[in-house]
Amino acid sequence: MTTAQPPRRADDRDPYWSRHRDREGTTARRDPIIWGSRVEAASRGPLGERELRSFEENGFLLVDSLFSEEEVERLLRRAEELAAQPPDPETLVREPGSDAVRSIFRIHRDDRVFRSLADDPRLAGVARQILDSEVAVHQSRINFKPGFTGRPFDWHSDFETWHMEDGMPGMRALSASLLLTDNLPINGTLMLVPGSHRTYVRCQGETPEDHYRQSLAEQRVGIPSQHVLRDLIGEGGVVQATGGPGSVLFFDCNTLHGSAGNITPYPRHNVFMVFNSEHNRLEPPYGGTRPRPSFLADRAPRGDRP
Amino acid sequence: MTTAQPPRRADDRDPYWSRHRDREGTTARRDPIIWGSRVEAASRGPLGERELRSFEENGFLLVDSLFSEEEVERLLRRAEELAAQPPDPETLVREPGSDAVRSIFRIHRDDRVFRSLADDPRLAGVARQILDSEVAVHQSRINFKPGFTGRPFDWHSDFETWHMEDGMPGMRALSASLLLTDNLPINGTLMLVPGSHRTYVRCQGETPEDHYRQSLAEQRVGIPSQHVLRDLIGEGGVVQATGGPGSVLFFDCNTLHGSAGNITPYPRHNVFMVFNSEHNRLEPPYGGTRPRPSFLADRAPRGDRP
Repeated sequence: MTTAQPPRRADDRDPYWSRHRDREGTTARRDPIIWGSRVEAASRGPLGERELRSFEENGFLLVDSLFSEEEVERLLRRAEELAAQPPDPETLVREPGSDAVRSIFRIHRDDRVFRSLADDPRLAGVARQILDSEVAVHQSRINFKPGFTGRPFDWHSDFETWHMEDGMPGMRALSASLLLTDNLPINGTLMLVPGSHRTYVRCQGETPEDHYRQSLAEQRVGIPSQHVLRDLIGEGGVVQATGGPGSVLFFDCNTLHGSAGNITPYPRHNVFMVFNSEHNRLEPPYGGTRPRPSFLADRAPRGDRP
Repeated sequence: MTTAQPPRRADDRDPYWSRHRDREGTTARRDPIIWGSRVEAASRGPLGERELRSFEENGFLLVDSLFSEEEVERLLRRAEELAAQPPDPETLVREPGSDAVRSIFRIHRDDRVFRSLADDPRLAGVARQILDSEVAVHQSRINFKPGFTGRPFDWHSDFETWHMEDGMPGMRALSASLLLTDNLPINGTLMLVPGSHRTYVRCQGETPEDHYRQSLAEQRVGIPSQHVLRDLIGEGGVVQATGGPGSVLFFDCNTLHGSAGNITPYPRHNVFMVFNSEHNRLEPPYGGTRPRPSFLADRAPRGDRP
């Protein structure tokens, strides 16, 4: 645990308070980016010194062709099967105003193929290396951005939501996004703001109960203002994570990211595994709301039940 | 006139009929792309043989840095003035669900600065060269794609609408789009389908009266089906017309194009001048509806009133 006894409600004792009715702003990150010694981390692998430095500097790292074509084909086929026949309809989110599947959650528990992906050292090993501890999956999902109808995701930091709505204490978590299709400049590929992971954005606006029912389709609370976005993007610019199937994008839990819609016929499908440090276990949500369902925030990571 | 006495209603005597209640499909283009002799056209200039061949092949041509930084700055400033104080509020279209300005039309008549841009030989000269005749402005507009809120434009061919709703007889028109800001891969830059100008897409669905009131903000009729788009994009692919301020994209009236939304803070503003051949004067709309207002389709081109 990085902070002893974090407060239960968003207030000035919580360094990462947010969602105030009428206050917004930014504050410096309190937590390391690479945990432990970077030299030791580099010697542990799988990432090398240069890759770690790039992750630390930018808040993300794209590794090309980490998975083979055959592996990706198998995962893509399985993803499409799950979209057609979800193991649990509650874990499936559709595009607003359409029947197209936008996301399927909790695949690290509900499906054998993705369960073993969550354990794959090419993903979990990088998380252990950067977070300097054992890790567990906080959230897993497949994001489908279908051709023609894929909708945008607004700019956001995942950590702000995980802190306020799930009770994640500190910034000791990261996402691994495995590209299942070509992520081109034109089909709604993820964009990130280099360096934004060093700044925590306090978003304005109170969280309604059961906010997730709306936010998964179209997020409106927990979104930085245009004013703040202009500042952060003005400093860091925007990088688009284009790459081929099998590439993996690792990004810090506090890196600002978003994506445009997809009007091309080329689908953009990615798997996300969010790894959280065992020293960063979930508390009650810092925003004071009821915890989100376990398919969005795994409160009993598998490590607990060997 | 390329066809004598074209029929007034969309039916089988009109080679470019469209908007049938329940029929869709495609048909080959009947009209030349480069009018007259290409050799003579190349000798006339301003485009060279190679540029003409590229336009003919792809249906578009991007010419870098055709206007200077100073010229573009002046036009951009004027565009922003017009957005703040439009000469005629009727010519201004806002983004759906927002106050942001999406387009201002008829700038070739209503504003001195853009009037002289319409006469600029770098634009009108290329139109005369490709269309092998005198030309007049059929439509002019500034398209604003503001940062954060810019919305997508669905795939469409301009000619289908100009034929059905404005009465443009044949494919003897082209657009010149002058880039006023950086058109990046990430800020909703125009995408085109190379080769699509050789195929006319008959779109399904009848045109409501005063369709333009809705279609300028979000087009729903006159849009090819996903099935047809998949075929055409499958053959030609998609090219994004990225370029710096001062570059000009020339594209044939029948080239399929569209653009994604813009969630970045970088605005994407372009001026469009549509040039039509003097031998292709507007008839009553082929779809049988009332002609659209003159700010969308100039029925008394300036050449008529010297």
